[in-house]
Amino acid sequence: MPDPRPIGVFDSGVGGITVLRAIKDLLPAENLIYLGDTARLPYGTKSADTVVRYASQAARKLIAQDVKLLVIACNTASAVATSALAGQFAPVPVIGVVEPGAEAAVAASQTGNIAVIATEGTVRGEAYPRAINARAPTAKIVQASATVFVALAEEGWTSTAVTREVARAYLAPLFSGPEKPDTLVLGCTHFPVLLDAIRAELPAGVAIVDSASTTAQAVAAALKDGSAAPANQKGAVRFIATDGRERFARVGRIFFGNEIDADAVELTDL
Amino acid sequence: MPDPRPIGVFDSGVGGITVLRAIKDLLPAENLIYLGDTARLPYGTKSADTVVRYASQAARKLIAQDVKLLVIACNTASAVATSALAGQFAPVPVIGVVEPGAEAAVAASQTGNIAVIATEGTVRGEAYPRAINARAPTAKIVQASATVFVALAEEGWTSTAVTREVARAYLAPLFSGPEKPDTLVLGCTHFPVLLDAIRAELPAGVAIVDSASTTAQAVAAALKDGSAAPANQKGAVRFIATDGRERFARVGRIFFGNEIDADAVELTDL
Repeated sequence: MPDPRPIGVFDSGVGGITVLRAIKDLLPAENLIYLGDTARLPYGTKSADTVVRYASQAARKLIAQDVKLLVIACNTASAVATSALAGQFAPVPVIGVVEPGAEAAVAASQTGNIAVIATEGTVRGEAYPRAINARAPTAKIVQASATVFVALAEEGWTSTAVTREVARAYLAPLFSGPEKPDTLVLGCTHFPVLLDAIRAELPAGVAIVDSASTTAQAVAAALKDGSAAPANQKGAVRFIATDGRERFARVGRIFFGNEIDADAVELTDL
Repeated sequence: MPDPRPIGVFDSGVGGITVLRAIKDLLPAENLIYLGDTARLPYGTKSADTVVRYASQAARKLIAQDVKLLVIACNTASAVATSALAGQFAPVPVIGVVEPGAEAAVAASQTGNIAVIATEGTVRGEAYPRAINARAPTAKIVQASATVFVALAEEGWTSTAVTREVARAYLAPLFSGPEKPDTLVLGCTHFPVLLDAIRAELPAGVAIVDSASTTAQAVAAALKDGSAAPANQKGAVRFIATDGRERFARVGRIFFGNEIDADAVELTDL
């Protein structure tokens, strides 16, 4: 039986909207609810215990909306909270962004040399090296934190000359060693909007793994059990934030690729 | 009688270290304690009530160290909490960064056309326009948020070609209208480390008001009542953070202009 219930997607802020968008593009019949915990961002600087608690509160809010599947569209929360939430909210499936990204990186790489760019917190937590090496123990992973990318994305400077220059500064050192990576993982939900600038500064032949679209594919695979929406359903999107409706709509549109109506953004407490 | 007790300086993170450094440079005999509430940053996205509560907790921690003067080295907290803290901790003087910056801007401007660059939260809160217009009701203030500057400063990219280009992108629109500002206020504690790049992209003759050094001057003025440190005292600096000693030392050194020993950074709860 097709399942018309919505899919719940949450993040600490607006970056996870790239994941929402990828799901919407791949599965247009699905109803989607996006929750951004904007009052308590960023998660990346908080302790694992706190992140698990916050993620659990966000997930509970979505479960109360009767979602059929939960997506953790936040690298920090995916790394520390995916299994805890899967246990807490079973039988609702829980999909994070790290595992699909790692899976795709291993599939894409011929040489086993893989580069990851992410925020400082994600790099320090080593979630991608762990998840990649769990699948390919001999893979060699180099990481770089790309803090300025987040600010450029939120400013909407997605393909300016400045963005190209920043991309060059971050990428050149990663691809200059003797064991050049043949695959680059975008390990931050903000980065897919910078894809053109990143690609322009990469050596030819390097595969880019965009964790937004790989996560969307993991969602599609999970719905193959028959729980996809009726094919004739016209999927709708609801946005919920814990603070700052106006900023959510203004910055969120960069990641959504379409206008977001600030008045339609629902505010909630977690 | 000279007063050997320390001056307490606090901020939500490491940016306020530019203010600490300016005080240290101007008043080398003073003992200084810096508290960065790194576990709960940023303050700029939080409600005024929450910021007042956090600022009050940080101030109490410093008062417990017997400080003789409190400096709020954070624009967000200065804007909403200065008078509350002054009332709460009287007779200890409380100095924020907004008022000295506004005072210096009014003194520097000949035309009354003043530009302010700050974070998004500070711009939205309009603290500088209010403080400037309280002193010069006819002054015309234009503001721009310069989000990417914060990331560039924390990355240590203080004078790269990228920083110059970003400065051009932010500053050119502010200085292109018919009523060109003759004064620019750096309304974020991160920005003084970008001074060279900012100056290089400003029209000739524009005065820069750096709220770190103006705040240091306000501190010096407040100590003229005889409560300055003994002239032969060799001022020492203590650092306290609420999280992430290693990052505090690594990023803080950019703002301090000197190494910070991570092992010497004290951790505390507020």
